[in-house]
Amino acid sequence: MIVVMEPGATDEMIEQVIKRLRDFGFDVHLSKGVERTVIGAIGEKTAEKIQQIEATPGVQRIIPILQPYKLASKEFRQERTQVNVAGVVFGGAHVPVIAGPCAVESREQLLETARLVKAAGAHLLRGGAYKPRTSPYSFQGLAEEGLKLLAEAREETGLGIVTEVVNPRDVETVAEYADMFQIGARNMQNFTLLTEVGRTKKPVLLKRGLSATINEWLMAAEYIISAGNPHVVLCERGIRTFETETRNTLDLSAVVAVHELSHLPVIVDPSHGTGKWKYVTGMAKAGVAAGADGLIVEVHPRPEEALSDGPQSLRPEVFEQMMKAVDQVARAVGRYVLEQPCAANLA
Amino acid sequence: MIVVMEPGATDEMIEQVIKRLRDFGFDVHLSKGVERTVIGAIGEKTAEKIQQIEATPGVQRIIPILQPYKLASKEFRQERTQVNVAGVVFGGAHVPVIAGPCAVESREQLLETARLVKAAGAHLLRGGAYKPRTSPYSFQGLAEEGLKLLAEAREETGLGIVTEVVNPRDVETVAEYADMFQIGARNMQNFTLLTEVGRTKKPVLLKRGLSATINEWLMAAEYIISAGNPHVVLCERGIRTFETETRNTLDLSAVVAVHELSHLPVIVDPSHGTGKWKYVTGMAKAGVAAGADGLIVEVHPRPEEALSDGPQSLRPEVFEQMMKAVDQVARAVGRYVLEQPCAANLA
Amino acid sequence: MIVVMEPGATDEMIEQVIKRLRDFGFDVHLSKGVERTVIGAIGEKTAEKIQQIEATPGVQRIIPILQPYKLASKEFRQERTQVNVAGVVFGGAHVPVIAGPCAVESREQLLETARLVKAAGAHLLRGGAYKPRTSPYSFQGLAEEGLKLLAEAREETGLGIVTEVVNPRDVETVAEYADMFQIGARNMQNFTLLTEVGRTKKPVLLKRGLSATINEWLMAAEYIISAGNPHVVLCERGIRTFETETRNTLDLSAVVAVHELSHLPVIVDPSHGTGKWKYVTGMAKAGVAAGADGLIVEVHPRPEEALSDGPQSLRPEVFEQMMKAVDQVARAVGRYVLEQPCAANLA
Amino acid sequence: MIVVMEPGATDEMIEQVIKRLRDFGFDVHLSKGVERTVIGAIGEKTAEKIQQIEATPGVQRIIPILQPYKLASKEFRQERTQVNVAGVVFGGAHVPVIAGPCAVESREQLLETARLVKAAGAHLLRGGAYKPRTSPYSFQGLAEEGLKLLAEAREETGLGIVTEVVNPRDVETVAEYADMFQIGARNMQNFTLLTEVGRTKKPVLLKRGLSATINEWLMAAEYIISAGNPHVVLCERGIRTFETETRNTLDLSAVVAVHELSHLPVIVDPSHGTGKWKYVTGMAKAGVAAGADGLIVEVHPRPEEALSDGPQSLRPEVFEQMMKAVDQVARAVGRYVLEQPCAANLA
Repeated sequence: MIVVMEPGATDEMIEQVIKRLRDFGFDVHLSKGVERTVIGAIGEKTAEKIQQIEATPGVQRIIPILQPYKLASKEFRQERTQVNVAGVVFGGAHVPVIAGPCAVESREQLLETARLVKAAGAHLLRGGAYKPRTSPYSFQGLAEEGLKLLAEAREETGLGIVTEVVNPRDVETVAEYADMFQIGARNMQNFTLLTEVGRTKKPVLLKRGLSATINEWLMAAEYIISAGNPHVVLCERGIRTFETETRNTLDLSAVVAVHELSHLPVIVDPSHGTGKWKYVTGMAKAGVAAGADGLIVEVHPRPEEALSDGPQSLRPEVFEQMMKAVDQVARAVGRYVLEQPCAANLA
Repeated sequence: MIVVMEPGATDEMIEQVIKRLRDFGFDVHLSKGVERTVIGAIGEKTAEKIQQIEATPGVQRIIPILQPYKLASKEFRQERTQVNVAGVVFGGAHVPVIAGPCAVESREQLLETARLVKAAGAHLLRGGAYKPRTSPYSFQGLAEEGLKLLAEAREETGLGIVTEVVNPRDVETVAEYADMFQIGARNMQNFTLLTEVGRTKKPVLLKRGLSATINEWLMAAEYIISAGNPHVVLCERGIRTFETETRNTLDLSAVVAVHELSHLPVIVDPSHGTGKWKYVTGMAKAGVAAGADGLIVEVHPRPEEALSDGPQSLRPEVFEQMMKAVDQVARAVGRYVLEQPCAANLA
Repeated sequence: MIVVMEPGATDEMIEQVIKRLRDFGFDVHLSKGVERTVIGAIGEKTAEKIQQIEATPGVQRIIPILQPYKLASKEFRQERTQVNVAGVVFGGAHVPVIAGPCAVESREQLLETARLVKAAGAHLLRGGAYKPRTSPYSFQGLAEEGLKLLAEAREETGLGIVTEVVNPRDVETVAEYADMFQIGARNMQNFTLLTEVGRTKKPVLLKRGLSATINEWLMAAEYIISAGNPHVVLCERGIRTFETETRNTLDLSAVVAVHELSHLPVIVDPSHGTGKWKYVTGMAKAGVAAGADGLIVEVHPRPEEALSDGPQSLRPEVFEQMMKAVDQVARAVGRYVLEQPCAANLA
Repeated sequence: MIVVMEPGATDEMIEQVIKRLRDFGFDVHLSKGVERTVIGAIGEKTAEKIQQIEATPGVQRIIPILQPYKLASKEFRQERTQVNVAGVVFGGAHVPVIAGPCAVESREQLLETARLVKAAGAHLLRGGAYKPRTSPYSFQGLAEEGLKLLAEAREETGLGIVTEVVNPRDVETVAEYADMFQIGARNMQNFTLLTEVGRTKKPVLLKRGLSATINEWLMAAEYIISAGNPHVVLCERGIRTFETETRNTLDLSAVVAVHELSHLPVIVDPSHGTGKWKYVTGMAKAGVAAGADGLIVEVHPRPEEALSDGPQSLRPEVFEQMMKAVDQVARAVGRYVLEQPCAANLA
C-alpha cells in the first residue's frame, strides 16, 4: 500500500509511521517529493492494519494497491470456473437460461410456468418461496410449502431449481429442496447468510447489491468461497442510480469487468435490471453480447395476476421469442443458448 | 392511485382495466384527455393489486397517491414519538448523544472509552459485538463476550447500551444485554431481522440503507412497528453517491423530510456519514441545526490502534469539544445536549 | 396533470385550486378519497402553470401525466427518423461506426488514424478541435487549425467529419468544416448552444449528460428540433454512478428506452462509457445487440502518446477486430455494420 | 504519482515505463512486491503525461498523489480568501444572505421582492435575467431588460446584484449591470464561460454541478482563477442522487470539505438543494452550522404566481423568520448574519 502524508507532516510523524509499518512487518520505501512525502509499504496486510496506519497522526490517506479479494480473483485462478447446477454448467460455451415466476404462488401457477419455460428452452426453474418485500403488507411467499411445489415441478419437468434464501435459519431447509441458492441483492452483504451458504457445497447465485461496487460484490463472493464453497455464480441485476425510466440501471460493463478481475461466471437479470417487460429482450440480448455466462428471467403465464413483479414478467410467448433472439446473439459471439439453433430469421 | 393508459390503448382495454379495478373494490373515475386516458381509483389498495393493474394490457404506468407506510406516517400520529432508552429520551427537547467505539475490542478499551465519553457528557454507550465487515478476513467482533463487556461498562458508568444485531438467531441474546438494538445500514432491508426485533419491546435504532430512499426507510420502520414494536428511532448515516472525498454523503435533508412525513425521531451519524474524523464535528453541528433528535458518534481513545473505523473515530478530547459545540447549536434552535450549558465561548 | 392536495387541505383551498385550474383553461375532475383529495386537470399546460399550481397553498404535489417533449416523442412521429451525415444514414438497417482520435493533435496523427479506421471499415471520422478539459492546464485542442486538418482528412479518405462545438461563437466556423456537430455531455444543457445548432440544418450528435435523465436528454433534443433542426442523433456515453471500476456506467437500457419513447436514432460510445480500452469491444457488441443505431469509438495509432484519453483508445488492430465482432452481432439482430460480412469465425 | 503495473507485466515493460518517466523528467522509485510492481514518480506532471503513462503497455493504473488544482488549494494559500461584493464580504465572520426571486419577471415583482428581502435583512439581491430552462417552451427570462430592472432595484434598495450569465457573448453586458456573476450548476464545466468570467475582475459565484465531485468543482474554480480572477465564491446547491423526496441532495459535507481543501469561501443554496420551501429553513440553519460562508435563498412575494421555482420559494414572512433563525445558529458558531441579533426566542 501507499501511505500519503499530510503536507505539514513533521519528520517525527514520518518516522513514527515508518516504525509502525516495520513493526507490522512491511518493507518500507520512503519517497520525499517537494509537496508530499509518500511511503510505499510492501507485505501482507489486513484491513485492520490499513485503517490503523490511516488513523496515525500525520497520515492524509492510504492507497491500497492490491484488491482485497484473493480466492475470487483472476490472479488466484486464471481459467473461468465452471459451476454445475443439476447438470447445467455456467462458465462454458453454453449460456444457460434460468426462468420462472418471481414468486411461487400456487401449484397450478408454478407447474404451468415450469412446463412453458421448459418448452421454450429454459435450463433451470426459478421461483421464490421466501420473498423479501419492501412492504410488510405484501405477499411474503409460501415458505416451505413453496419449496415443495418447486420440487414437484422439478420432478415433472426435469428442470433444476434456483430459489432464494433470506434467513440463516432456513439454509438447511432450502438446501434440501433447491439445486442452487439465490442470495438476493438486499442480502449481498448479509454476511451471516453468506457464511452459512458458504458452509454448504451447493451452488450459490450471488446477486449484486443495489449500490454495491464490483469490488464489494467480489468481496461478498470471497465470504462464500473462503467458508468452503467455491461454486459461486455472480448475477448483475441493476444498480440504483438517478434514472427513473428503468427500475434499476443494468450495468452490463460489470460483466466485462468481472471477466477481467475474476474467474467466476457472471449472469444477467434483465427483469429486475429494467423493471419493464418491454425492455427485457433487448437487454437480454445485450447481456449475452457482453459475454454473460447466463440469464435469469421472470416469466408468468398471466402477469396481470402475478402476486409480485407482474410488470417485468414476460408472457410465455414473448419468452419463447426472447430465447430464439438471445440464441442468435450467443452464436454471433461464439456461444449458444439453445441446443438446436432455430431456423427462423429473427430480423 | 392513478392508472395511466398507453396512448394506443383501445376502449376494450380501458373497460377491462375499469372492470378489474371495480372487482378489486375501487371507486373508479375515468378521465379521457386528448392524448391520454387516465383512470383514478379510490380505495384500499395493496402492493399486489397495484402491480396486477400495472401488468394489465394497455396500462402504461401506475401512480400511487398515498405513501405505502401507515403506522410510521405523520397522518397516523401527529405528535413526535418519544423513545425511552434506559431513561434517555429521543424525540423531546433534549438531544441525546450516543458515543463509543466502532467495535468492542477488549475490556480495557471499552471501559476506558466508556469513562471518557461519560465524562464528556455522552448519554448512551455504543459498541459493536457482532461486526458486519466487508472482508471475511477482518475482525468480526467478540460476539457474546463483547456483549458482556458492554454490560460491565453499563454497570460501571450507568450509560445504557446500544449495540448492533445482525443475525436473527442472536436477537434474544442481544436483547438480554442491550438497551437498544441497532439495525445497521446493510440490514435495513433484512426483513427477517426487522420482524424479529419488532416482536420484542426493546427500542430499535434503524439506520438508513446505503441506497435506500426515505420512503423505503420508513417502510423498514413499518416492518418493525407492524410486528408490534413502536419504539423506533431512525438514523441517517449517509447515502452512497459518486462523491469520493467523503465515505458517504450525509443527507441531512432526510432529517427535515422525516419530520415532515413521520412521527418517528431521527438522529444523525456523522462518523459513518463522512468517514473522516476532521469532518465529524462540523456535520454533527449541522445535523443538530437541521433538527436531529440525537447523534451517534464513534470515539476511540487511540484511533491508530482501533480494529475498525479508526480514521473516522474522534479522540476523547475532540469529542469533548464537539459536545460543547453541538450543545451551543442545540440551544440556538431551542433544544439542548448538555444538562448544563458550558460557559466557554466556542467561537 | 394530477394535483394531490395535502391531507389537511381545507375546502377553501381545494376550491381555490380548482378556480385557478379553470382560469388556466383546464378541464377539472375532483376526486375526494378518504385520505386525500386529488384533482385531475386536462388541457394544454406549460411548466409555468404546473409550478404555479404546485406552489398554491394546500397543494402537496403535482404529477404530470404527459412527457414534456413533443417533437422528440414517438407520439409525434412513429417511424424511426433517419439522419443522413455525408451519405451515411443513422436509423436504418445499417449500423454506422464513427471512429477516430479523441483530439486532433497533428496532421500526421490525424491522417494516419483516418486511413487506419477507414481501412478497418469505419464510416465517419471523429476528432476534437475544441476540447472541453477538466483542467485549465491540459491541452485544449488546435481550434480552427484542427478543423482544417479534419477537412483535409475527409478530402483524402472520403470519410465525413464529426466534431465537437463548445462555444456558441464557434457554431458558424465549425459548420463550415464539419458534417455533423457533436454536443458533448458537459454541454447537454448548454441551452444557448443547443438553440444555435438548432438554427442550422447540419446533423447534431447529442451526447447524454453525465447525470441527465432520459427525459432531460429528450428535452435537450427538443431544444434543437424546436429551433428548426430535426437531424438529431442521440448518443449514450455513460452516466455517473458510485462505481469506480469504470469511468462511467454505460446505460444500455437507455437505447431500448429511447426506442420506446422517441423516434430519434441513438448510438453508443463505449470508449467514454467504460474509460478502458479492454472493455470497449465487449460493450460495443452489447450496444449493438441492444439495438443501437451506431457506435462512436476512440482510436489512436499510439495511445501511449495521445494528448487525451489514451487509456480508453483502441489501437488500430484492436479496432479492426472490434469491427468484425460488432458486424457479426449486428447480423444476429437483423442489421449490419460492414458492407461485406467477414468470413472469419470470431468465436 | 504512483504507477501500478499489471500482474503479468514483463521486465521489458517495466523498463520501458521507467524510461518514459525519466524522459518526462520524473524522479523514479521502483518497488517490486510479490504480487505487483509499483513505480513511484516524483516531479511536475500534467494530465497529458499521466494519461500517456497510463496507456503504456503493462500499466494497470495510475494513482495521482497531488490534487490537480493549485491556485484553488489550501496549500497555495492558507487563510480564507475574502470576496467583496458591493461592500458585502464573503469569507469573514459575517455570513451574508443573497435573496430574491428565481427569475426577474416584471418591474413590480422585482422591486417588491427587493424591498421585502432588504427589510428582512438580506445583504444582496439575486434574480435571473437569462434563465437556463429544461424546456424550450418555458419562460427564458427578460434578458437585458431584466438586467436593467435589477440595476433599478439596486438603485432603490442599495442591495448589490447577483445574476446568472449563461452565454459567453453576454459576459460583457452582464458585467455592466451585475456586482457578481453567477455560474449555474449546468454551466460548471462550460469552460469557455469560466475562462471569460475569469478575464474580468468581477466576483463569481460558482455553483457546483449536479454530478460534479468536489475535486472537479475546485478545478472549475481553477479555470477562473488561472484566467486572472481570484474573486471566486463556491456554492453548494445539491447533487443528483437516487432520492426523490428532495429535488437534489444538499451535500453539506462539501462545505466542511472545501474548508479543508481550499481557501475559497463556500455558501449554501437550500432552495435548489431541497426544491421545497418547507425544507429551506431547516437546511439553511444546517448549512450555517456546518460553517457556510453565506446563503442564497429564493424568495417570491406570491410563489403561486412565480414563472419559475415557485414551489421552492419562500414567502417574505417565512424568509424573515428564516433570517432570525439562521442568525441565532450563526452566533452559536461564533459568527453572525444580522447586524443586530434579534431579541425574540425562536425555540
